[in-house]
Amino acid sequence: MTEPAVARGWQLVRRPVGVPRPEDFHLAEVDVPELPDGEVRVRNAFLSVDPYMRGRMNDARSYAPPYALGEVMTGGAVGRVVASRDDRLPEGTTVLHDRGWRDVAQGPARLFRPVVTPAGLRDSVHLGPLGMVGLTAWAGLVEVAGMRTGDVVFVSGAAGAVGSLAGQIARLRGAGKVIGSAGSDHKVDVLVERYGFDAAFNYHAAPVRDQLRQVAPDGIDVYFDNVGGDHLEAAIDAFREFGRAAVCGAVSSYNATEPPAAPRNLSAIIGKGVTLRGFLVVQHQSSAARAAAEIGGWLTDGRLVADETVVRGLPRAVEAFLDMLGGANTGKMLVAL
Amino acid sequence: MTEPAVARGWQLVRRPVGVPRPEDFHLAEVDVPELPDGEVRVRNAFLSVDPYMRGRMNDARSYAPPYALGEVMTGGAVGRVVASRDDRLPEGTTVLHDRGWRDVAQGPARLFRPVVTPAGLRDSVHLGPLGMVGLTAWAGLVEVAGMRTGDVVFVSGAAGAVGSLAGQIARLRGAGKVIGSAGSDHKVDVLVERYGFDAAFNYHAAPVRDQLRQVAPDGIDVYFDNVGGDHLEAAIDAFREFGRAAVCGAVSSYNATEPPAAPRNLSAIIGKGVTLRGFLVVQHQSSAARAAAEIGGWLTDGRLVADETVVRGLPRAVEAFLDMLGGANTGKMLVAL
Repeated sequence: MTEPAVARGWQLVRRPVGVPRPEDFHLAEVDVPELPDGEVRVRNAFLSVDPYMRGRMNDARSYAPPYALGEVMTGGAVGRVVASRDDRLPEGTTVLHDRGWRDVAQGPARLFRPVVTPAGLRDSVHLGPLGMVGLTAWAGLVEVAGMRTGDVVFVSGAAGAVGSLAGQIARLRGAGKVIGSAGSDHKVDVLVERYGFDAAFNYHAAPVRDQLRQVAPDGIDVYFDNVGGDHLEAAIDAFREFGRAAVCGAVSSYNATEPPAAPRNLSAIIGKGVTLRGFLVVQHQSSAARAAAEIGGWLTDGRLVADETVVRGLPRAVEAFLDMLGGANTGKMLVAL
Repeated sequence: MTEPAVARGWQLVRRPVGVPRPEDFHLAEVDVPELPDGEVRVRNAFLSVDPYMRGRMNDARSYAPPYALGEVMTGGAVGRVVASRDDRLPEGTTVLHDRGWRDVAQGPARLFRPVVTPAGLRDSVHLGPLGMVGLTAWAGLVEVAGMRTGDVVFVSGAAGAVGSLAGQIARLRGAGKVIGSAGSDHKVDVLVERYGFDAAFNYHAAPVRDQLRQVAPDGIDVYFDNVGGDHLEAAIDAFREFGRAAVCGAVSSYNATEPPAAPRNLSAIIGKGVTLRGFLVVQHQSSAARAAAEIGGWLTDGRLVADETVVRGLPRAVEAFLDMLGGANTGKMLVAL
């Protein structure tokens, strides 16, 4: 028998309209019951905050069902089993699971996946390059866009969790040229100097279309879209024949209260034989092992870097989420408990 | 030696802004020189007028280079060799070629392709189901959209040359349901009663999105887009997971002087894993024989009908073109000389 406990977790208490505000959330205390047979109790070490969560805060089905008001939200987390009534997950096991936004998670063992952290890396790697984020970047580039050696690849939001990996994977898989956009001059420097992008620009500095044309005068073959809006329009403009876009996210519109501006040049995909393909990482789970093996190798030998922006303490989780939506992070935004 | 002759042909004399006007064109007399060695002279029997020609009237590269002002326009035509100085194309040979918009065409033999018209069909079939139009419909459906047995298929502009074939090919290849849109109640009747569509609607009668949802309450798998604009938006709305659009044309915007409205719901392709793929028929020439064989079989055994709207006489070619852009045709619009 394991004693009942008290956990804290973030609830959504009001559906945000536009940019979410701190008052839309409440850090609640919740009772954790005695541990039933077949369940485990996990103390979370890292919580993930991700752009897709914004969609779940609306009262409409987006990629995933909406968060219920007044319930603790869910999301990726890594933690350690602190009490177990299931032999498959003994105490001390490091697990990856979806009961984030809280300090203590408890539930049936099948909800928690044991993970092994490669030597020299932190457990948070399972929320980043070796987890969904890494698979998103890898599958988008390799399977959705069908990147080939020599391709000119453009990644938007390239200093973010997915974008920073997508650009590096493109380089490591032999892209002819890798171009990135980001929201500050500092991030642009990081893209080129730290992640090895061949060129990068600050999308606040001038129209995306003009800047992309300048750094890719001969056009692009692949576009990894994390932003949507004017970025997608610019990419359609810049595509060479048979260009391919992996449409992964549209962070430019997540807080929009009006339908976003759509690419007015969409019919240009006809003459160039361009493919725009949307995808969700869950549609590519079968490639998870392959992606993690490739990315893990590059991480270990230092050819790929996976930066983290870490905020400490559960009380600051909402702040981390809002900062991430606003672009404050470089690499993966995490909450360390 | 063959005597010089006089031909008549339509020139573009002013670049249209918006909807082309008759004054933008001029029916000119042009001298046809003596026939040099290696060339043939062809009397055209049928001229093709096609939506893509509108793009060539602008001073900007669209799918094909712009028409030069003051020169006779080009376009698909079928005719008969009336004089030959090349042994490969003796007099009497029926040829398919790109020197349309005129009554007599002359040039090197390599510009003219001999064709054999199956028994019971007219020579104009090479400008329709056995030519580029048929290949466009077939390749768009089979190779671009990857239509599979059981798919729910939506075709816009479905009473037109390409659309009427695309819908019938979908039916004959085992679509679960074929839905078409057209611009009049009469055309809607033709779709259902003559072409065998399972459902059809008049896109002038109510918003496309509402009508599509009504006839496809469980969504669609494939969209063959001839129209763009609100049709594409409606299709994105109606797509099931892994839906695929073959984006063939955007006739709703060909005469537009402003960039067209783009689908405001484009980011919905992410969650549904939807693919939007533009294409040109020239990118699928390697499938021409396969497409023609399949379509030819269905034409011969009467399971596929290829309607024509025929205007008689070269002087009415511009009228035919303008009527086609305005949607006056059912099936392929042709000029018979």
